[in-house]
Amino acid sequence: MSKVAISKRHVFPMRVYYEDTDAGGVVFYANYLNFAERARSELLRSIGTDNRKLKDQHGILFAVSGCEVKYKKPARLDDMLEVHTVLTNVGAAKLTAAQTVKRDGEDLVLMDVDLACLNEAGRPARLPALLREALMAASNCH
Amino acid sequence: MSKVAISKRHVFPMRVYYEDTDAGGVVFYANYLNFAERARSELLRSIGTDNRKLKDQHGILFAVSGCEVKYKKPARLDDMLEVHTVLTNVGAAKLTAAQTVKRDGEDLVLMDVDLACLNEAGRPARLPALLREALMAASNCH
Amino acid sequence: MSKVAISKRHVFPMRVYYEDTDAGGVVFYANYLNFAERARSELLRSIGTDNRKLKDQHGILFAVSGCEVKYKKPARLDDMLEVHTVLTNVGAAKLTAAQTVKRDGEDLVLMDVDLACLNEAGRPARLPALLREALMAASNCH
Amino acid sequence: MSKVAISKRHVFPMRVYYEDTDAGGVVFYANYLNFAERARSELLRSIGTDNRKLKDQHGILFAVSGCEVKYKKPARLDDMLEVHTVLTNVGAAKLTAAQTVKRDGEDLVLMDVDLACLNEAGRPARLPALLREALMAASNCH
Repeated sequence: MSKVAISKRHVFPMRVYYEDTDAGGVVFYANYLNFAERARSELLRSIGTDNRKLKDQHGILFAVSGCEVKYKKPARLDDMLEVHTVLTNVGAAKLTAAQTVKRDGEDLVLMDVDLACLNEAGRPARLPALLREALMAASNCH
Repeated sequence: MSKVAISKRHVFPMRVYYEDTDAGGVVFYANYLNFAERARSELLRSIGTDNRKLKDQHGILFAVSGCEVKYKKPARLDDMLEVHTVLTNVGAAKLTAAQTVKRDGEDLVLMDVDLACLNEAGRPARLPALLREALMAASNCH
Repeated sequence: MSKVAISKRHVFPMRVYYEDTDAGGVVFYANYLNFAERARSELLRSIGTDNRKLKDQHGILFAVSGCEVKYKKPARLDDMLEVHTVLTNVGAAKLTAAQTVKRDGEDLVLMDVDLACLNEAGRPARLPALLREALMAASNCH
Repeated sequence: MSKVAISKRHVFPMRVYYEDTDAGGVVFYANYLNFAERARSELLRSIGTDNRKLKDQHGILFAVSGCEVKYKKPARLDDMLEVHTVLTNVGAAKLTAAQTVKRDGEDLVLMDVDLACLNEAGRPARLPALLREALMAASNCH
């Protein structure tokens, strides 16, 4: 079979605990951004690096420069969720991730997250070449 | 002086504490959404109601249905911030708020937040008439 | 088999993410209580129940009535931790758990947590018999 | 006026927001430790310093080495609370604070918090003399 685009997708499973919920009985809206950050950290780990190595070895970190979130259905206490992450753009000093929080295959929250690679002074920094290659390979953008 | 549109703006002052920061030395990106929610709660209080009264007296709550966030500069430990909130749309069952986190007059984070009024079953509900009038009066939309 | 006491111990593995850390570069002290709550929730799941079932089927929940915490060493970003939980007392309407956050076998944080079983009115409630039996079986107290 | 000991007590007023609550409808147990930390930060500010100055000017920070918490009554959404802080011991490199979360004069949560003064390497450090004097003056221990 040929030419079928296979979406490269990182899947992070996670559980909802009391700390994630609020008095409305559902997950507090800001906390989905926590979940998305955990998933991006695990995506980094899946390609052989992590936030601490990026800082210690390269003096860089990824900072969120913007995000757009659509809340479709609420997650609740004890729910088992998945955060699906697709890298939709890997630039010289920027990344974009499309992230979806799902429960039983259903989309709950959709996020588009823009990330900037920064050096320790907080200035834009180019992605190290090997990291960029690994991110490209893990992405849908070639 | 006449006809000058005065932007009706709710200002919520707040301090950054350790709990708000992360190992990058700045406020964690999700936590600005906490700050925005605090400010919206205080805006409600400023017009004579609060989340608990809305629930107990009217059986409604405001749920965020979407938000768009631009992170321009980071806030840091011990910073004194202001969250400025302008209601840019007050519909029959929806609100939109433009919220800006500022430090010393400078914009740090810009948020556009869409809110839906929901009943206890989580279904869209019309804003009670008096609440809608009060929100209109507190907004820039007439 | 003879009188060797086998400590029944529930082990919950977890990762430290940015949200857990603070500007001091370590996990914020309150967040270890989040980790402990996650571990207690998983202990419940390991004996066939969960917080939601307890609420929906029995109208009860566990509330922390007290805790004592010793912080020995800090956890850091990207650390892989384990929360070890031993039920040291299972009463008619109360539980006590000894919980330890470990990294590579080393104790970082020690917690003794007292829990009360409450009904929906927030009053003390007896543990349902089957739940109590399952907790006794999962504990060191016979 | 005569020798009546006046308890020196720092009072920090604060509001409960959605982020502080959980699906049980009350403030999540770990979050009272956030409130206590905010109050300790404001106590520092009340004597002319803050966490950032301590770090930048003296290379020190306060880390919690232990705490004991009694939960008597739950706080709820929109509650106005006060955190009362009394320094019960000011040592060469250690502090102890008794902190109480109150609502309308009633005790909700009682905390005894042990703090260690640490240098940037995470080792115990003596309190700078002027800071120690100011803390002594703000405490009940002379």
